[in-house]
Amino acid sequence: MKIQIINGPNFNLLEKRKDSIYGGKSFEGYLKLMKELYADFEIEYFQSNIEGELVDKIQKTGFNSDAIILNAGAYTHTSVAIRDAIELVKCPVVEVHISNILSREDFRHTSIIGPVCTGSILGFGLDSYRLAIESVRINN
Amino acid sequence: MKIQIINGPNFNLLEKRKDSIYGGKSFEGYLKLMKELYADFEIEYFQSNIEGELVDKIQKTGFNSDAIILNAGAYTHTSVAIRDAIELVKCPVVEVHISNILSREDFRHTSIIGPVCTGSILGFGLDSYRLAIESVRINN
Amino acid sequence: MKIQIINGPNFNLLEKRKDSIYGGKSFEGYLKLMKELYADFEIEYFQSNIEGELVDKIQKTGFNSDAIILNAGAYTHTSVAIRDAIELVKCPVVEVHISNILSREDFRHTSIIGPVCTGSILGFGLDSYRLAIESVRINN
Amino acid sequence: MKIQIINGPNFNLLEKRKDSIYGGKSFEGYLKLMKELYADFEIEYFQSNIEGELVDKIQKTGFNSDAIILNAGAYTHTSVAIRDAIELVKCPVVEVHISNILSREDFRHTSIIGPVCTGSILGFGLDSYRLAIESVRINN
Amino acid sequence: MKIQIINGPNFNLLEKRKDSIYGGKSFEGYLKLMKELYADFEIEYFQSNIEGELVDKIQKTGFNSDAIILNAGAYTHTSVAIRDAIELVKCPVVEVHISNILSREDFRHTSIIGPVCTGSILGFGLDSYRLAIESVRINN
Amino acid sequence: MKIQIINGPNFNLLEKRKDSIYGGKSFEGYLKLMKELYADFEIEYFQSNIEGELVDKIQKTGFNSDAIILNAGAYTHTSVAIRDAIELVKCPVVEVHISNILSREDFRHTSIIGPVCTGSILGFGLDSYRLAIESVRINN
Amino acid sequence: MKIQIINGPNFNLLEKRKDSIYGGKSFEGYLKLMKELYADFEIEYFQSNIEGELVDKIQKTGFNSDAIILNAGAYTHTSVAIRDAIELVKCPVVEVHISNILSREDFRHTSIIGPVCTGSILGFGLDSYRLAIESVRINN
Amino acid sequence: MKIQIINGPNFNLLEKRKDSIYGGKSFEGYLKLMKELYADFEIEYFQSNIEGELVDKIQKTGFNSDAIILNAGAYTHTSVAIRDAIELVKCPVVEVHISNILSREDFRHTSIIGPVCTGSILGFGLDSYRLAIESVRINN
Amino acid sequence: MKIQIINGPNFNLLEKRKDSIYGGKSFEGYLKLMKELYADFEIEYFQSNIEGELVDKIQKTGFNSDAIILNAGAYTHTSVAIRDAIELVKCPVVEVHISNILSREDFRHTSIIGPVCTGSILGFGLDSYRLAIESVRINN
Amino acid sequence: MKIQIINGPNFNLLEKRKDSIYGGKSFEGYLKLMKELYADFEIEYFQSNIEGELVDKIQKTGFNSDAIILNAGAYTHTSVAIRDAIELVKCPVVEVHISNILSREDFRHTSIIGPVCTGSILGFGLDSYRLAIESVRINN
Amino acid sequence: MKIQIINGPNFNLLEKRKDSIYGGKSFEGYLKLMKELYADFEIEYFQSNIEGELVDKIQKTGFNSDAIILNAGAYTHTSVAIRDAIELVKCPVVEVHISNILSREDFRHTSIIGPVCTGSILGFGLDSYRLAIESVRINN
Amino acid sequence: MKIQIINGPNFNLLEKRKDSIYGGKSFEGYLKLMKELYADFEIEYFQSNIEGELVDKIQKTGFNSDAIILNAGAYTHTSVAIRDAIELVKCPVVEVHISNILSREDFRHTSIIGPVCTGSILGFGLDSYRLAIESVRINN
Repeated sequence: MKIQIINGPNFNLLEKRKDSIYGGKSFEGYLKLMKELYADFEIEYFQSNIEGELVDKIQKTGFNSDAIILNAGAYTHTSVAIRDAIELVKCPVVEVHISNILSREDFRHTSIIGPVCTGSILGFGLDSYRLAIESVRINN
Repeated sequence: MKIQIINGPNFNLLEKRKDSIYGGKSFEGYLKLMKELYADFEIEYFQSNIEGELVDKIQKTGFNSDAIILNAGAYTHTSVAIRDAIELVKCPVVEVHISNILSREDFRHTSIIGPVCTGSILGFGLDSYRLAIESVRINN
Repeated sequence: MKIQIINGPNFNLLEKRKDSIYGGKSFEGYLKLMKELYADFEIEYFQSNIEGELVDKIQKTGFNSDAIILNAGAYTHTSVAIRDAIELVKCPVVEVHISNILSREDFRHTSIIGPVCTGSILGFGLDSYRLAIESVRINN
Repeated sequence: MKIQIINGPNFNLLEKRKDSIYGGKSFEGYLKLMKELYADFEIEYFQSNIEGELVDKIQKTGFNSDAIILNAGAYTHTSVAIRDAIELVKCPVVEVHISNILSREDFRHTSIIGPVCTGSILGFGLDSYRLAIESVRINN
Repeated sequence: MKIQIINGPNFNLLEKRKDSIYGGKSFEGYLKLMKELYADFEIEYFQSNIEGELVDKIQKTGFNSDAIILNAGAYTHTSVAIRDAIELVKCPVVEVHISNILSREDFRHTSIIGPVCTGSILGFGLDSYRLAIESVRINN
Repeated sequence: MKIQIINGPNFNLLEKRKDSIYGGKSFEGYLKLMKELYADFEIEYFQSNIEGELVDKIQKTGFNSDAIILNAGAYTHTSVAIRDAIELVKCPVVEVHISNILSREDFRHTSIIGPVCTGSILGFGLDSYRLAIESVRINN
Repeated sequence: MKIQIINGPNFNLLEKRKDSIYGGKSFEGYLKLMKELYADFEIEYFQSNIEGELVDKIQKTGFNSDAIILNAGAYTHTSVAIRDAIELVKCPVVEVHISNILSREDFRHTSIIGPVCTGSILGFGLDSYRLAIESVRINN
Repeated sequence: MKIQIINGPNFNLLEKRKDSIYGGKSFEGYLKLMKELYADFEIEYFQSNIEGELVDKIQKTGFNSDAIILNAGAYTHTSVAIRDAIELVKCPVVEVHISNILSREDFRHTSIIGPVCTGSILGFGLDSYRLAIESVRINN
Repeated sequence: MKIQIINGPNFNLLEKRKDSIYGGKSFEGYLKLMKELYADFEIEYFQSNIEGELVDKIQKTGFNSDAIILNAGAYTHTSVAIRDAIELVKCPVVEVHISNILSREDFRHTSIIGPVCTGSILGFGLDSYRLAIESVRINN
Repeated sequence: MKIQIINGPNFNLLEKRKDSIYGGKSFEGYLKLMKELYADFEIEYFQSNIEGELVDKIQKTGFNSDAIILNAGAYTHTSVAIRDAIELVKCPVVEVHISNILSREDFRHTSIIGPVCTGSILGFGLDSYRLAIESVRINN
Repeated sequence: MKIQIINGPNFNLLEKRKDSIYGGKSFEGYLKLMKELYADFEIEYFQSNIEGELVDKIQKTGFNSDAIILNAGAYTHTSVAIRDAIELVKCPVVEVHISNILSREDFRHTSIIGPVCTGSILGFGLDSYRLAIESVRINN
Repeated sequence: MKIQIINGPNFNLLEKRKDSIYGGKSFEGYLKLMKELYADFEIEYFQSNIEGELVDKIQKTGFNSDAIILNAGAYTHTSVAIRDAIELVKCPVVEVHISNILSREDFRHTSIIGPVCTGSILGFGLDSYRLAIESVRINN
């Protein structure tokens, strides 16, 4: 099974973001761990700070993956473009967030993309990604 | 490990609720399945239609369980009392929802309890509960 | 034909509530009158101050009554739980209010349960209940 | 007893409006039926698409009828003029709606005229009118 | 000098409206008084319950009167059509209100037409009309 | 093919309205031009300042025209009655506006009737009407 | 008869304020003119930039004047203190504004003090004050 | 004199709630202290996590106590049912809060029950209850 | 112990304010009574209608009093300046209101200063001040 | 004459988007058709999923095209950057939408770019583009 | 060159305000430093806690200074009076804030006076004043 | 000292933007001037129309510059991604705007990025950049 993980802006420097919220670890290290843990999955990774490149990637991988795990980060709250891309692809898209967006600033409380995702997992730290993979396994 | 599942109003008749949203199965049947799947966990179950009884149960089990898995249902959107109960207990509380509350009526978009839970899992159907148990396993 | 009347909080002391709005009579007296007037109907009555007990009653009687006549009182404006219960039962539920909730305080202007009821009757004093029974008769 | 029924805009073509909401029948047919059913009442009927003509009619009939049954239709949600007319006449005015306005588009959720009517009956289809007549009978 | 007074809905029955707000006198009586008091003015009067007829009248008299005194009544709060008519005519339009609309229901607090009138006079009872005539005299 | 053009309030004096927004020409002159340009169409014209007469006209012509071109003017922003009329007729209704309503006062930003029209054309000056006719031609 | 005129902030430099809105004349010059025109009235004048001094003055003159003419200027939109002072004094208080506050910035659209004044006169330039005096004459 | 203290949800475990807000002491201990301090009062205590049971208690004690001291806790912000109960009983009801609800989360800023209480005391820690008793003493 | 009472605008004429809300007594009389009742306290009194003078007084007495009892009156709802003053002084500030501000006009529902006060006491009439003194006694 | 068509995000996969809204055809096919139909125009096409690339393209072609036809898609509702670009270029920009954005989700009801475009055409399916070209022809 | 610095409420005790926001230094000390640093400027200083005195000072110095540097403090968010004063004077007014008002409480996010100032400098601590002086130098 | 200036969308054509707001000069010319004026600083410049490229640049230069001067232009009002980037880098970020965003369209009044910047300078035309450099000099 093929899983595409897509991360939005500022996850390329996750280790620099606020420890209390993001845990202070780089995503790349965690990715390596996940690949070992879920060796039976083919896990692809993509990150971009550019909204439109996230749209591009969802379009390109959404027809030949078994699932997309998407952390749109800051674009979660504003991007109609990403929402539209999710709606047009064929594979399920699982929304994940490291932090609980509901307990942060007001402008992070809304998810424009949530309503068109298969499901959402939020607040479990980096483990949100693992649970997303589990959701794919359970669902197949 | 001891896990307390707490379900809010109308989950005692889950099989009667809208198929397109809830799947048309009884929760009891699913619970049995979960107990088999997760035989290494001690899984307790409680359901009530009464907000205050949910508060009572969280208070009573929140100091001697390893985790509470809570689907507060209709009270999710309005209950400050349940939120306060979650905040005062010691064990982690994982919020689950069968449907994606973000894609339903406006008054279901807000979760008053979400900000004080460890994490939230929504939209995976009954599998939301399984993912919640996985989150407990991963976290320990 | 079997009709279940369900009254929400503070209707057990209706005679103590503001005369100008509620008329200063006890509901029990009125109920007796109705039972005489509509002797061809089997009229059951239930009142509770507890939201969840109203949910319980709707669940229990909503599959074996010909209609429920519901005055959810104060819970009208906030209870998603009662709304969900109405949606899952089989029999028609008619919403009644003694006063015209639209001409009272702002927080009484919204009915969360109205949209899932068969119809609503408001402002006719205790006669709202009689009209609700008439609506059942007409509809059968 | 003399009852004046007043219908607002688009009820002259009721049979053309959405079946799922309005039932696909003409009002004139229903009116005939009501006149037969309530032969002891003198039932007058008036319909106009013009807000001000509804005001005129309420003014003219509101001092010599026993009741007005008013379905202001689209003007329900915006007409302060009709509200003011209702307030100045002497006879009771009963508000009726064929559909449950609370379960339709947002702009139909408010009734500007409701707070000054004797009572409101909504969502019983054309039977809302019959219940309105019953309310007059009960009240006299 | 020619002054056109235009009254909106329900002023044809002013004597029936709430005494505490409108004073319980007919407008026609007051008009007669004004004509005597201001014999040097040619005072024309028009009243309609129909929004569009008010638009018609403003259009027709707004190019050959020295001033229009307009009490749009209930349409004050909603009529963009009357506002547009005021904007296109040549003569000054003075807005009057018998009551202080700011101290009544919320929906009477806004004046859509106020911003395009020469000035507004509110709350002086029927004397608001006299003051409007004085404003025309002073201005000429 | 038969096209019914319907104009709302104040278009009978278009030449008097603000030049910078409306261009300072009479609609009648433009209509003549259009009739010449589109000689293969039977173009009927109706204008009224009265909301309900617009409703009447839509009802009467909406079953025997190939299209209605509607500029509801000021009523665009408030008329549920016109919206309901559009919904019940059979022929397509194209919404036009001379000015770009989005760049004017706040209360002109909303179109109550837009959502039930076939399409909307706004801001091209009087040419908006020509484009509306073109839209009918293309669509047939 | 004794009339107290009270002007709020920035009216001491009226001649410096925007010509297009305020007319570019000093208030003192206008006051002189009024005193001549209304020689039968005893006209007192007070101006302050300090909200509390306006409160003081209203308290002090509101029991021994026949009327207060108040232009609270900028404090119109925010001062609950001035409103409370108006409410407690005995003489009528007439609100005036030189410009039409409804056609200016949003924050000038609300009058906190309007609802407790006898009446309001707005938009007639400095003549608003003359009309206010006329209103006192008419009323006596 | 008989005083009924009624506490809402989560006050049975007050000692577990956030020290910085609630002080970390159990209510029972404090109650004992108060009974000693105010030996001349007969002080009854009731706590429940269930909204409807609070309604029940207010109804039952509100006709035979000299005062009710009510801390509705989480229900303060949402319970119309409790408000209605307070309005129908005969004895004065004093609202108390341990913390200053105005300086906490947004959803705690509103008190639905405040407007129908005799008075409100908030933010003095547990001493809010003592002040409430003092208010009863002063008032008698 | 030294207590500084500070009253905001219009309390110098308390006896003139609405009886039904304020009781119709002068504050000075009540103050005398309090001084007698609480002879063991040194009670200072200050009143001003000027917001900034209240700020001055809070600054000047907030470092050498044991407590300030503040009824900011009309400024309660708007004054950020008073709030900032309260925050910078050393002694506790107790907010009092004679009436229950929550049951009056909408613009009186918010307290800008409440969140930075030690506690708030509202609705007990003039006794609110006595309870504030009691709160100081209890707290010391 | 040179016309630049610019399409925003997800139009590169138009054929995959919801049939009921977008018609299920690829834009490229339609473009070919338009080029044939309007052979006298030089039609250039550009599509990007990246907001800033749309800005780039508007800047680059807005000084040497006779018109830009812009469907900003998802960015319509949020992009101030595109709006600013439209404002700074010299050629007219016509806004088009395939669907009627007013009858879809709330967040699609606003057009940030509409107010600075020459005109807007919405809801005619792909024919919206043809009408836009017609608007250019008419205008020249 | 003559520069007038005007500080609003509570800056006379700047050293007592929250260190984390205001730095814990007195303004007077800083003023001395600035006078030395900018010896080529004539720097005048004024502080008041009274809104109207700030208005007075702006009026008095705004015609004979080269610039006003204004920190209106708490009045920034509410004072229309100060805004009007700024608009009527001749010299440029530069708005400064010590803290970043955008990152504090909601009610500090709006600046009523900002839109009529030459420019605004916020968040640089006391150095905001220095930058304001630099802005005057650069601009001359 | 190394200063990185980053400009958002449409600043590459600054000379084409509205003269009245932006001054009609190219930024490149101004940059040259600044480099001469501040020869002791190493000034780097970057401009992009793409939100994500601004994020990239902030990430890349925010760890090895002494300060970033950021004019995010249109993205100021919507970009959570840029805000997150500012929060994660080490060097101070100074927000600048050429115009006073508070006196323009409503959607330009909010700055999403302001709260996480060191300080903000707005409305001084291109000199806002010079003041930003001064702020860096003063701060070091």
